[in-house]
Amino acid sequence: MSTQRTPRRIELEAVARRLFAARGYHATSMEDLAQALGMRRGSLYTHISAKEELLLATVERGADAFQSALAEALEGAPPSAPTRLSRALRAHLGVVAAEPDAAACFLWEWRHLGEPDRSRAIELRDGYERRVRELFAVGVAEGAFRADLDVTFASMSFLSMGNWAATWYRPDGPLSPDEVADRFYSVLLAGVAASSP
Amino acid sequence: MSTQRTPRRIELEAVARRLFAARGYHATSMEDLAQALGMRRGSLYTHISAKEELLLATVERGADAFQSALAEALEGAPPSAPTRLSRALRAHLGVVAAEPDAAACFLWEWRHLGEPDRSRAIELRDGYERRVRELFAVGVAEGAFRADLDVTFASMSFLSMGNWAATWYRPDGPLSPDEVADRFYSVLLAGVAASSP
Repeated sequence: MSTQRTPRRIELEAVARRLFAARGYHATSMEDLAQALGMRRGSLYTHISAKEELLLATVERGADAFQSALAEALEGAPPSAPTRLSRALRAHLGVVAAEPDAAACFLWEWRHLGEPDRSRAIELRDGYERRVRELFAVGVAEGAFRADLDVTFASMSFLSMGNWAATWYRPDGPLSPDEVADRFYSVLLAGVAASSP
Repeated sequence: MSTQRTPRRIELEAVARRLFAARGYHATSMEDLAQALGMRRGSLYTHISAKEELLLATVERGADAFQSALAEALEGAPPSAPTRLSRALRAHLGVVAAEPDAAACFLWEWRHLGEPDRSRAIELRDGYERRVRELFAVGVAEGAFRADLDVTFASMSFLSMGNWAATWYRPDGPLSPDEVADRFYSVLLAGVAASSP
């Protein structure tokens, strides 16, 4: 896909993901996009065939950011499951901080896609979630995570912490993405109870 | 406020929270609201002075649902901190399941409010989050939760699990709200590690 993108198209995608994330997909008109770029509405159709194409491009950008960050965090010789978990949380929070608009579209605006784009978005999300679930499943198999762990809800917990952060994290706030990730890691790894129940 | 609400106003609020949650506040016009009610756009102004009034009403409804459910879950003689935590998670998930539209507006559409309504929404959210933080702070003080617990991130974990569920929970899915809450409770209480690190 990237081989086909003109500089104008790249600019259009950047404006689209900013507006979709800030106001929502439905609330962003082709007119809004044209105005933000100083173009006429009709000229947009030189670059795209429909507004939805821009949402799909943004969702794909978000998916790619999360997948690549996770792959990079886990590459090389496999360290212990807790270390992998810590790195994966840092990777997720890193994307939330560095690509907030694409993350927001990947995490919730995708719902506004029609078919077949919607299925494509679900497939991308499922692919990422599967990788996160694997982290926990392998950790249980290795004996680093507890044998009775509900792997589905352990990964839902990871994703809830990471995804909800996309609604509140601000790069100009007091904590770096790594610091946020490490605090969640401590809760997720050890739990809140004073001793194992 | 409720003493002033006519049946038509109640109906208007119900339609508004459904459309705000489904399409977003900005993407829902007064025309959309009028159409959904079979009224003329101008007639809406008999009932409200501006669209934002409906968003604030929905945010207040969501805040009240979360606050009331939590207060009810914790009333009476105080049980152990883990039991309070379990009840509080069930209360939160219960609201997500029973009032999904008001929950969605309380959790994210509030951002589209202008002042002074925006400050009012933040105050309501902060009030609820303070109650959740208290659960953990008291649990640490009682010795039921670990002494080195980061109370802020423990409550952020609770809220992340509960709030993110508002994006994926479906009442016709395989799990009841209590079952979802109990699974998150198990992860949050005991963590994922095989033994305390």
